[in-house]
Amino acid sequence: MKEGFAIGIDLGGTNLKVGVVDSSGRVAVSRSVPVGQDRSARGIVAQIIEEAARLRREAPGPVIALGCGVPGIVDFEKGIVYSSPNLPEWGDVPVRELLLKGTGLPVALDNDANMYALGECRFGAGRGHRNMVLLTLGTGIGGGIVLNGEVFHGDDGFAGEVGHLVVEPEGISCGCGGRGCWERYAASRGFQVHAERLEKKEREALLAAAGTDLAGLTPELMAKLAGSGNKIAIELWGTLGRYLGIGIATLLNILGVYTFVVGGGIARSMDLFAGSAKREALAHTYPRHEASLSIIRAALGDNAGIVGAATEALAMAK
Amino acid sequence: MKEGFAIGIDLGGTNLKVGVVDSSGRVAVSRSVPVGQDRSARGIVAQIIEEAARLRREAPGPVIALGCGVPGIVDFEKGIVYSSPNLPEWGDVPVRELLLKGTGLPVALDNDANMYALGECRFGAGRGHRNMVLLTLGTGIGGGIVLNGEVFHGDDGFAGEVGHLVVEPEGISCGCGGRGCWERYAASRGFQVHAERLEKKEREALLAAAGTDLAGLTPELMAKLAGSGNKIAIELWGTLGRYLGIGIATLLNILGVYTFVVGGGIARSMDLFAGSAKREALAHTYPRHEASLSIIRAALGDNAGIVGAATEALAMAK
Repeated sequence: MKEGFAIGIDLGGTNLKVGVVDSSGRVAVSRSVPVGQDRSARGIVAQIIEEAARLRREAPGPVIALGCGVPGIVDFEKGIVYSSPNLPEWGDVPVRELLLKGTGLPVALDNDANMYALGECRFGAGRGHRNMVLLTLGTGIGGGIVLNGEVFHGDDGFAGEVGHLVVEPEGISCGCGGRGCWERYAASRGFQVHAERLEKKEREALLAAAGTDLAGLTPELMAKLAGSGNKIAIELWGTLGRYLGIGIATLLNILGVYTFVVGGGIARSMDLFAGSAKREALAHTYPRHEASLSIIRAALGDNAGIVGAATEALAMAK
Repeated sequence: MKEGFAIGIDLGGTNLKVGVVDSSGRVAVSRSVPVGQDRSARGIVAQIIEEAARLRREAPGPVIALGCGVPGIVDFEKGIVYSSPNLPEWGDVPVRELLLKGTGLPVALDNDANMYALGECRFGAGRGHRNMVLLTLGTGIGGGIVLNGEVFHGDDGFAGEVGHLVVEPEGISCGCGGRGCWERYAASRGFQVHAERLEKKEREALLAAAGTDLAGLTPELMAKLAGSGNKIAIELWGTLGRYLGIGIATLLNILGVYTFVVGGGIARSMDLFAGSAKREALAHTYPRHEASLSIIRAALGDNAGIVGAATEALAMAK
């Protein structure tokens, strides 16, 4: 790998995380800036190019590449972002070419969860594992599958859309057009689903303690309630964990991968659900996997995306 | 690839399929022989070595390698069969070493479904696809995942145990120790499950027409009933197809693979369930996959396993 630094970009729906990283994953500079008013592809690409110019001046050494993670459906081979749920104006944008023209740097482009997965696998919780699955629990469940140390992309870059694996065939409708998708049960909106299924008395007690309606049962509020000893809240974290475990078992059975790294806001409450997730996962696969299966918290925090993107760019530029 | 022939072996619970195959997948000799009385590892390995000697004499040219598919959990790197559900006496058998000693040929060893998948991908229904999933529908659902033209093995060879992906979290118990496994709903034993869920009147009418109890609702009998226009039987094939589609959607969402090749006895009735399988799969994933998804019947019939095993052996020996 050539010596030098790379710029890492992690584009979110509201914020742009940017940084300068070396090939051993050390972050020399990093910050988060709000996405500008102009959220069109042209506007955001211009903002990234401007940030990149600033980062090059701040870098402790020569910057030789740029890596960028974008939420949505990305063709990493062609460098095109087909669509992005949080940036609805984006469609078929040749982001790699635009960034190359604007910065003069070789560009690695991929889905944000894939870049996050690479960061965690190389320098975070997945260090030392050739194979792992990253799960980001937020409004949905993002996934990045790393096999033999590289992102697995499938036929056309669509692989890793694990949020839509089916856990209840006749279940709740999902934005993808399907029903019973995993992310409706095992991510933040799951609390509403599971609270609806409680007995009326329990549900009312929970909502009274929470001082909100069903839609207001956020992970933050549920963590606070569980922390104060609310038994129903603790039980619902267990239910969320069980559904997480079901999807993990399916992934394990299909992929033969045993290391699951969990990130995203909900991962802060891992103590409340990791136990039930592991128990349920083991209940849905062969007992022989008990020793191998590990469900662990992501280690790089907000930096995983820029570390993955930058080091992938350095690996490509070598 | 070196010129020459390879012996392909496909070990089943009751029969041993054997053949001589060239590097273009052409089968020069093939036959099926019953597994001998001595079903221990030693007994079956001795039988394979004997068959191999006979096949070498029958081959139209030099035999330079031997490939063998074994049902069960196989470590293809180490050449060990850890366990085999149909051969319960087998445990931690160094099959590759034993066959190498007994034949003097380099040996490729893998799970039978993986060998089957390679055969179909290289020379059968999956020809021209780098990525595909083979599903064998029988008592269970066997799976072989081919990525970039090679079998995907996961961390330890356990990948592709697709029969145990979870389609009903609170569903029926499975031999693996889990609940709600795909193979209980979308393979031959699914008819019993789906018939139990019919309204009593319909169920009784079906059993009367079938002249059997629930456990007797085999795919053969159900195909016969459907062929004679029995509406309830036709409906149950549709239900089986729907469950097949749910698992296919999950595989597609995780792997980003769009070609599903269906083999095994039930595949003979594909006209009765392929339509509902595809509709249901599309109902559980993004609509954009409609054009890419194909669910097709395996093309090599009983020869897929020996063709895959033999050509994999030739590829290894090159």
